[in-house]
Amino acid sequence: MASTVEHDAMRRALTIARRGPRGVNPQVGALLLSPDGDVIAEGWHRGAGTPHAEVDALSRLAPGAARGATAIVTLEPCNHTGRTGPCSEALIAAGVARVVYAIADPGDHSSGGGTRLRAAGVEVEAGLLADEATALLDSWLTVQRLRRPHVTVKWAQSLDGRAAASDGTSTWITGPQARADVHRRRAEADAIVAGTGTVLADDPALTARADDGSLLPHQPVPVVVGARAVPEAARVRQHPHAFLQYPGDEASGGLRALLEDLRTRGVQRVFVEGGPAVAASFLRERLADELLVYVAPVLLGGDRLAVQDIGVTTIGEARRLAVASVTPLGDDLLFVAHPASEGDE
Amino acid sequence: MASTVEHDAMRRALTIARRGPRGVNPQVGALLLSPDGDVIAEGWHRGAGTPHAEVDALSRLAPGAARGATAIVTLEPCNHTGRTGPCSEALIAAGVARVVYAIADPGDHSSGGGTRLRAAGVEVEAGLLADEATALLDSWLTVQRLRRPHVTVKWAQSLDGRAAASDGTSTWITGPQARADVHRRRAEADAIVAGTGTVLADDPALTARADDGSLLPHQPVPVVVGARAVPEAARVRQHPHAFLQYPGDEASGGLRALLEDLRTRGVQRVFVEGGPAVAASFLRERLADELLVYVAPVLLGGDRLAVQDIGVTTIGEARRLAVASVTPLGDDLLFVAHPASEGDE
Repeated sequence: MASTVEHDAMRRALTIARRGPRGVNPQVGALLLSPDGDVIAEGWHRGAGTPHAEVDALSRLAPGAARGATAIVTLEPCNHTGRTGPCSEALIAAGVARVVYAIADPGDHSSGGGTRLRAAGVEVEAGLLADEATALLDSWLTVQRLRRPHVTVKWAQSLDGRAAASDGTSTWITGPQARADVHRRRAEADAIVAGTGTVLADDPALTARADDGSLLPHQPVPVVVGARAVPEAARVRQHPHAFLQYPGDEASGGLRALLEDLRTRGVQRVFVEGGPAVAASFLRERLADELLVYVAPVLLGGDRLAVQDIGVTTIGEARRLAVASVTPLGDDLLFVAHPASEGDE
Repeated sequence: MASTVEHDAMRRALTIARRGPRGVNPQVGALLLSPDGDVIAEGWHRGAGTPHAEVDALSRLAPGAARGATAIVTLEPCNHTGRTGPCSEALIAAGVARVVYAIADPGDHSSGGGTRLRAAGVEVEAGLLADEATALLDSWLTVQRLRRPHVTVKWAQSLDGRAAASDGTSTWITGPQARADVHRRRAEADAIVAGTGTVLADDPALTARADDGSLLPHQPVPVVVGARAVPEAARVRQHPHAFLQYPGDEASGGLRALLEDLRTRGVQRVFVEGGPAVAASFLRERLADELLVYVAPVLLGGDRLAVQDIGVTTIGEARRLAVASVTPLGDDLLFVAHPASEGDE
């Protein structure tokens, strides 16, 4: 059982974990406690290529000073030599007597640190404040599970499924509350994806903005999919982050290659809102984890569809959705849905 | 002020009004009370071409027996010579001393009976149990207001606005609760409209059925719109009512002529569910008073749209809807909406 002192230490470790960046590597915090329960060192992970949290904490101490100490870590110490050595070995070498961690490392290569520590005679306790640690690492854990970034596909449509009137005009199908909701969600994403068709036709800024038009603190990296050149004057070139462009075609590995590259850049959450063709591509490739459909109480008719061909040819192939919520936003409705697993159909 | 006896009499008049048919003419009930408050006669209207309720009640009495009586009528006595003489004159001639009615006659030609009665020295009181009488005549009053039957346009669609997969298969986009709801609503309509395209492609029965497939007590008259012949073997020919067919084209006066003809046949409520082309036609002609959109939580993509061209070419022409309710029906959602008045846009 973890002591009250260890509880408090884990809470502190979760707090300092947040100092690190969200990216390819998890945000991790670590504390070293003396046998009397005093905090003798703190550490956190500053991102890929820098020491892990445990090693960062150990590095604050004189050699031998961690002998008999307890390490409190928000994630199971790794058992893997990457750009840094395995943390489990570093803790053993430092003479740490007890290790308490919150959640297990889900990695194929990096997990097993707990087992390694126990084999070396270190007392190991897992699961302290596991829920809090899971919440902190939600996006990172999702990336580990999916083996790619999490993808949200968003579109706005009329009730009859159109994105625009037949002349292409669409400002604004949905109202101010729906638009504010979109901007808030953009700010929670690491990347925002639009097709070259949308970039050329609508010239979107791809920024997350407040009601007054000012930029929100966090901006997703703009990503353009398609082969056509982004014009010199395109607003996406004024984005706080330089845009990335991917062909997105089969020859280049398609959307999976795009997502893999974004993952290596530390992108955990991708927000796709770049037009009917791009939305349909992600759906067709079954790469949409979450759908946000903003439905305006209007009818448009015509041929400007919000979603194009998604590869369904007969009704048995219909893509069933699990609708998580339907929320009124002004006059509009926001459907939040997930593709239903095969077992649900 | 109406007396308690008159209250009770109006309640009775509303009850016997329901014995008459719903149709071109309103359902009306009438009682004649002696000066002492005893019921001396009852009458109700049995449909177009038959005596009105007041005249029906008077006909039960010997000449002179209604002198000094009070007439209790659910609708203002008419002041119009149609296939029957004006009721106000009949009441005056019979020596009725007092007339209590629930609601005014909305007709251009038939109204004014109250004024005529007062001019002849009859005591007149209006508004007794007006809400109940309005509820009873809701559909008929709507027809008077619109000058045509009330039109409900219904369709089922995927969230992305498709009625079928690209190969035409669509059974069943929506689930059993949504389908049961449709049948219940069909049974409340006087006519059900489908296009020849739908009749030829899907061969619908156009009946209102219970969960076990049996026919519900009230069946709407099936109406087919379009020039193509209804096949000999079409299921609509097995409908309890003979089907009506209208070309629906401009040369024949279009959908307005269709609705006018249905009105003369006593149709008050029309349920349009006959496919994307017919739904779009009613919307384009601004002849849809109510929309029922059953949205299934699936995506289909492709080109089988639930609603086709409705005459909107630019976003400013988008047909705004006032959404009255969004109701879950199993996994589906039912949107009940009305076209927003110009002032709401």
